[in-house]
Amino acid sequence: MTDRAPRLTPLVASLPATVPFVGPETQERAMGRPFLARLGANESVFGPAPEAIEAMRRAAAAVWKYGDAQNHELRAALAGKHGLAMENILVGTGIDGLLGNLVRLLVTEGTPVVTSDGAYPTFNYHVGGFGGVLHKVPYRDDAEDPQALVARAAEVDAPLIYLSNPDNPMGSWHDAGTIRAMIASLPSGAVLCLDEAYGEFAPEGTLAKIDVGNPQVIHMRTFSKAYGMAGARIGYAIGHADLIAAFDRVRDHFGVNRIAQEGALAALGATGWLAHVLEQVAHARARIARIARDHGLTPLPSATNFVTIDCGRDGDYARAVLKELVARGIFVRMPFVAPQDRCIRISAGTGPELDAFEAALGPALGAAQ
Amino acid sequence: MTDRAPRLTPLVASLPATVPFVGPETQERAMGRPFLARLGANESVFGPAPEAIEAMRRAAAAVWKYGDAQNHELRAALAGKHGLAMENILVGTGIDGLLGNLVRLLVTEGTPVVTSDGAYPTFNYHVGGFGGVLHKVPYRDDAEDPQALVARAAEVDAPLIYLSNPDNPMGSWHDAGTIRAMIASLPSGAVLCLDEAYGEFAPEGTLAKIDVGNPQVIHMRTFSKAYGMAGARIGYAIGHADLIAAFDRVRDHFGVNRIAQEGALAALGATGWLAHVLEQVAHARARIARIARDHGLTPLPSATNFVTIDCGRDGDYARAVLKELVARGIFVRMPFVAPQDRCIRISAGTGPELDAFEAALGPALGAAQ
Repeated sequence: MTDRAPRLTPLVASLPATVPFVGPETQERAMGRPFLARLGANESVFGPAPEAIEAMRRAAAAVWKYGDAQNHELRAALAGKHGLAMENILVGTGIDGLLGNLVRLLVTEGTPVVTSDGAYPTFNYHVGGFGGVLHKVPYRDDAEDPQALVARAAEVDAPLIYLSNPDNPMGSWHDAGTIRAMIASLPSGAVLCLDEAYGEFAPEGTLAKIDVGNPQVIHMRTFSKAYGMAGARIGYAIGHADLIAAFDRVRDHFGVNRIAQEGALAALGATGWLAHVLEQVAHARARIARIARDHGLTPLPSATNFVTIDCGRDGDYARAVLKELVARGIFVRMPFVAPQDRCIRISAGTGPELDAFEAALGPALGAAQ
Repeated sequence: MTDRAPRLTPLVASLPATVPFVGPETQERAMGRPFLARLGANESVFGPAPEAIEAMRRAAAAVWKYGDAQNHELRAALAGKHGLAMENILVGTGIDGLLGNLVRLLVTEGTPVVTSDGAYPTFNYHVGGFGGVLHKVPYRDDAEDPQALVARAAEVDAPLIYLSNPDNPMGSWHDAGTIRAMIASLPSGAVLCLDEAYGEFAPEGTLAKIDVGNPQVIHMRTFSKAYGMAGARIGYAIGHADLIAAFDRVRDHFGVNRIAQEGALAALGATGWLAHVLEQVAHARARIARIARDHGLTPLPSATNFVTIDCGRDGDYARAVLKELVARGIFVRMPFVAPQDRCIRISAGTGPELDAFEAALGPALGAAQ
């Protein structure tokens, strides 16, 4: 572009043109055919509640109106559900969007940020995108290590720590007591971003009680997983009123889709559907585990809507298995970092999708040898 | 929050907790009743195309899937429409979202940015949010002043200039030749952000021909206005492939709502509906102008879906008129900056909405005296 070239900021000029994840549609276009089973992005193949679908359909004709910038009705419903005030709740464009905003509030060039090595890449993408410096703590027994994260944050004086509970991509989890102990030991001036995207799937006693009086913890929740609305881009943050208010300095106020607002509100009321989905997911997890064992592989325990399967060898082998599954029309993903990359990760599916996975797994393992 | 307080970045700590616009729902909650006519946000009360509504309804049940991160089908359709390559088109969450990304690419703390005094506040919000320093050029004859913008950009060495054509909030416009001359005189290293949100409403010969070989111009287009999908949050940028590619360093890749993707694709094909809307808007503009004249006010010429009305006195008077209209259930807005703040701005409405506006205007003027 010669001397007329746009002058990217030095930070942006230093960034790679990366994409945290390659989407399944991109892979389908490259392959020239659709996947038989979409089990790679921990979407909920069971779909949104019928009530939510109906609400979204009803909302379509009124989409000429901008959405309510305050997301008032949805926040009121969420406040009721969690027994909190509305000022403690912020609705945003999914956890991805909220993470971007949170990082922007706390991270500038050179800011140290602590996460686990192999945890959510999109969080890392945001940290890098604002010039932050990631300090990564290894997983311990295939789970994130709360006390190691806290210790590292103290060591590098990080204003932001990321932990997902339950964890993606391993499916592991900590009980509320462990999280409580972590929170109690946070260095002052450090905020814990507690990503609870998979919280609805976890055993009782997993989610830490929310204390909005504590300015050091922000909880992230979403309608993308148990509520089956990943494509709607709607989630929420819960935290201290001052921290929640700070988002108004940087967020895209009218950025939440109006149909998503209506759908989420209806989804929240559809408790019967949520229970149904949780039951379906439990069945699917059990079946995925059985399929894994039938093929000599080891399913890891999961508190999420996916099962991470230990392929029993190294990362190269698991990558080969993944590649062979993809070649057979099964969209799955896997952890990026060793030694967790000995695994592949299978989202809960319906019967036909898990049939397709089961049919493909044996040949894929054979070809990967 | 004492010493446990989150450590906001110095930039964020310096920002006000502002909101560029107060939404109509917020006003309705404050008033305790709904507006009779929603004519303040330049939404399209005529709604999306029936084909787009149908596509969004059909897409609701599949919203469990994340949207395609590459927005491939929509970009392919847009490339066809504009006779460009897909690499020249980026789909984002409305122009608001795209402006945020563009500013982030080019603006860091202290970066000078040039716009008109009284132009789009959300652009200013983004510039301030990334630490940029706004240099504002006055309107000239109620229109933005292309050559003054260019001259100021050269003077302060700005990497980014904002111009909307047609203009919001005044409804004025420049012909393509004037824009072409502006582009030809851009200082090297300056990018012109040409906000063409209202382009579909403008007379032929208004929009500058797109030249994606020129890295100094990026066009912003939206489905929020003529296509009637403001609440869907979907728009697009057109520009040089290298500049378009740079967005992949900072954008929320999976951030566009899947239902919006489907709706926009269908809307693009519904050319009959677009023609119908343009006709309805032309009728509404004529009627708003007539109502204004009937009340002794002066409607300004408009190339948009709104009419800006000169109330004939100062800003305080226009603000009083606006307040009295709002009190009578008519949602309208007005320019923020003198001398344009002698005006109020009325979006094109349907018959009943303009009836309500007409009925309220006389009493509002009386009360404002």
